Amino acid sequence: MNDERVCRCKKMACSTVRYGIGVTREIGMDMENFGAKKVCLMTDPNLAKLTPVKTVVDSLTKHSVNFDVYDKVRVEPTEASLEDSIKFAKEGKFDAYVAVGGGSVMDTCKAANLYASDPEAELLDYVNAPIGKGKPVLVPLKPLIAVPTTSGTGSETTGVTIFDYRPLKAKTGIANRALRPTLGIIDPNHTLTLPERVCAYSGFDVLCHALESFTAIPYSERTPCPTNPILRPAYQGSNPVSDVWARYALQVMRKYFERAVYNQDDLEARSHMHLASTMAGVGFGNAGVHLCHGLSYPISGNVRTFQPEGYSKDHPIVPHGLSVVISAPAVFSFTGSACPERHLEAAELLGADVANAKRDDAGKILADTVRGYMRIMKVENGLAELGFKKEDIPTLVQGTLPQHRITKLAPREQSEEDLAELFEKSFSIY
Amino acid sequence: MNDERVCRCKKMACSTVRYGIGVTREIGMDMENFGAKKVCLMTDPNLAKLTPVKTVVDSLTKHSVNFDVYDKVRVEPTEASLEDSIKFAKEGKFDAYVAVGGGSVMDTCKAANLYASDPEAELLDYVNAPIGKGKPVLVPLKPLIAVPTTSGTGSETTGVTIFDYRPLKAKTGIANRALRPTLGIIDPNHTLTLPERVCAYSGFDVLCHALESFTAIPYSERTPCPTNPILRPAYQGSNPVSDVWARYALQVMRKYFERAVYNQDDLEARSHMHLASTMAGVGFGNAGVHLCHGLSYPISGNVRTFQPEGYSKDHPIVPHGLSVVISAPAVFSFTGSACPERHLEAAELLGADVANAKRDDAGKILADTVRGYMRIMKVENGLAELGFKKEDIPTLVQGTLPQHRITKLAPREQSEEDLAELFEKSFSIY
Ligand SMILES: NC(=O)c1ccc[n+]([C@@H]2O[C@H](COP(=O)([O-])OP(=O)(O)OC[C@H]3O[C@@H](n4cnc5c(N)ncnc54)[C@H](O)[C@@H]3O)[C@@H](O)[C@H]2O)c1
Ligand SMILES: NC(=O)c1ccc[n+]([C@@H]2O[C@H](COP(=O)([O-])OP(=O)(O)OC[C@H]3O[C@@H](n4cnc5c(N)ncnc54)[C@H](O)[C@@H]3O)[C@@H](O)[C@H]2O)c1
Ligand SMILES: [Fe+2]
Ligand SMILES: [Fe+2]
Repeated sequence: MNDERVCRCKKMACSTVRYGIGVTREIGMDMENFGAKKVCLMTDPNLAKLTPVKTVVDSLTKHSVNFDVYDKVRVEPTEASLEDSIKFAKEGKFDAYVAVGGGSVMDTCKAANLYASDPEAELLDYVNAPIGKGKPVLVPLKPLIAVPTTSGTGSETTGVTIFDYRPLKAKTGIANRALRPTLGIIDPNHTLTLPERVCAYSGFDVLCHALESFTAIPYSERTPCPTNPILRPAYQGSNPVSDVWARYALQVMRKYFERAVYNQDDLEARSHMHLASTMAGVGFGNAGVHLCHGLSYPISGNVRTFQPEGYSKDHPIVPHGLSVVISAPAVFSFTGSACPERHLEAAELLGADVANAKRDDAGKILADTVRGYMRIMKVENGLAELGFKKEDIPTLVQGTLPQHRITKLAPREQSEEDLAELFEKSFSIY
Repeated sequence: MNDERVCRCKKMACSTVRYGIGVTREIGMDMENFGAKKVCLMTDPNLAKLTPVKTVVDSLTKHSVNFDVYDKVRVEPTEASLEDSIKFAKEGKFDAYVAVGGGSVMDTCKAANLYASDPEAELLDYVNAPIGKGKPVLVPLKPLIAVPTTSGTGSETTGVTIFDYRPLKAKTGIANRALRPTLGIIDPNHTLTLPERVCAYSGFDVLCHALESFTAIPYSERTPCPTNPILRPAYQGSNPVSDVWARYALQVMRKYFERAVYNQDDLEARSHMHLASTMAGVGFGNAGVHLCHGLSYPISGNVRTFQPEGYSKDHPIVPHGLSVVISAPAVFSFTGSACPERHLEAAELLGADVANAKRDDAGKILADTVRGYMRIMKVENGLAELGFKKEDIPTLVQGTLPQHRITKLAPREQSEEDLAELFEKSFSIY
């Protein structure tokens, strides 16, 4: 109130989503309502054969909406895979897009829409600085409907596209409100084909979106205060609104995460997880994430040989949710002292008994709670089991440094030594 | 899932708001960002002299934004008062609007923007059927920034304008997403001048938005299912998203309502109430309200002589929040049997001990809990103290019948006899 330099404000730009069992069947009408004459349907090779895509194809066909299918999305996209999808989008001259899949598909489709709408732009033009030029999006994009099939990224609500930039072996992305899908269709039916491991790993993505946005630096302490409200970043720090979504998602995780992972036909549990992933997306899309995500980008960028169950086996990957949660015990042990009450509250929402907990133990208690979930969900025992060697640590640290946009939202500052220690401590979890 | 006729879906269109102490000072830059050359600042005669308006005027002046002030908004607008503001807006040829005030000002400004953007339209063209023609809004409106100064209506987040249609002595309105403000500025500073009674009554508006949206018919039971997603009504019934906001608002009320009412300088309590009113607005703007609001419209439309403290004394009014809460004990006693768990949960969130409560008593328990808040906040003892006579009941019932758009969202159907009994039971509360 008295300090003009402090940024005490937030924008709550949020998305239009439709939620309900079977609501995907209306997508043909949605496209008619947009006046779409030629739709680009994007998906990945695996989903192309499954019911989520079939439901969309049936509805478009029923409503005589003309469409072409691009089913070559790479799971965990790279600059090269994005370029391929952009080429398809440019040639197709589409007037609307629908993405059916997880974060990989939705992110690829957002990028295809952007670059097809600005055909002269180079890929790096819109990519976040310092890797890219961070150009603002001034061209109008086509309507895009996102139909998530994992319960994880929340990409259907965010203006973010993430990809693995191979030359640097680290993930980076494009962050701009203009990329936010016109409509997200949250249809729990699509989760019924989700394999156990994808359900587990993408569920940990939701857990970390909630925990990181809840423990991020408060919006009122983020500096510097931008000189003009339009210069305010998308990620604003934790705030009363994102807190509501984080608490909601954590409560859902406690009740339904395990059930959803181990019971593929448990529509109730999977419905709740599906909506929670969207809501955690609204929350972190507003508040931001911090260290688990910052550390995850070089982890997935430097994968050697890891090939988990349930994912296509054409290339090694550390799936996003796994790469994020693997450092979570180390991260929350590290951040606990910066805001112990929030760490304790989060642990309690996840089911820990904190009645006699000491503030000094807050970080450890939350770390132990997350570790408990990891054990139940059979997460690999640390970076070692994902195929990393201790010699990789300097590379991992160097890959984290450019993720300043998010790591600076952590409630505690980190030196390079701190980062190295966080990786070191994540080699073995249990 | 198996029943195509049932509407199991919802849209979560939500608003952009900026929250923070002092964020109003940026409004001059916001208007510059819109490229506004001539702004219409609307307010009421009382607020025109107070700091909220002064803050806006200072910021517009500092940024050399040209503006005209309309300070004749009627508290609880009528068709005649709207016409006057519309005339001002048409003559001014403004390219942006800012509303500084409570629901009366924001609603008036939304209407002025609409009719100035479609100068040929008659007032009733856009008014909800059956009173008006319910015409869809196809003209583009100008940007409108809403700066609420009460903690009540949530109008800064809704596409709704309410006014008292004198020929029928009942409130009606215009409901269209196009009316939703471009930006809401939620600045707790503005609540520091709020008189005790306005704080109390508008707080009960928030309480009822939360309780009614939480107990509204579930979104999955609303029939018929619209044939096209664009035909889905704004009010969709209670759903997992609006539930989150309702629970949040009820928790805030429990903690801060009394403190905010009786301590004009308690910025912490008033900040929480201010944000809760916005969030309850997002919730009910999605789920809807039902009987307390349905019954309130003829109550405020048929006011005889009541003139509460804190409101301008130029005409008798039953302030909106008071007209809504006065029937709440009768309403929740009536609806309790339809969804007892929800009534008990709401009572518990408001502080009632429901450990040994019987399901059959759920309605009564919530009614008693609300009655307790009404007593603490010194609400008048029923319709009798507001100047109504038992002979008015048939008129009140007739005024409720056209409010079908909302009363049908109640979890229990109502005959005309039921409505008469609800009014009858609201003559005395304690
Ligand atoms: N844009 C954002 O805001 C955001 C946020 C977090 C993560 N991400 C990115 O999203 C990507 C990860 O996305 P994800 O975790 O959703 O997984 P994914 O899209 O990579 O899919 C993982 C695997 O699961 C399969 N699959 C997905 N849904 C299925 C279903 N219903 N039935 C059967 N198989 C199914 C896919 O075919 C694929 O093999 C990463 O690239 C990550 O960086 C983006
Ligand atoms: N559009 C919607 O979604 C919606 C929802 C609910 C109610 N409403 C409508 O809103 C109106 C009621 O609005 P309200 O309850 O916000 O009150 P209000 O706008 O009618 O204002 C009430 C009184 O309080 C004074 N006041 C307001 N803020 C003040 C401040 N900060 N300091 C000093 N005085 C202040 C005003 O001058 C006025 O005298 C009704 O017409 C109601 O029907 C609209
Ligand atoms: Fe993520
Ligand atoms: Fe209201």
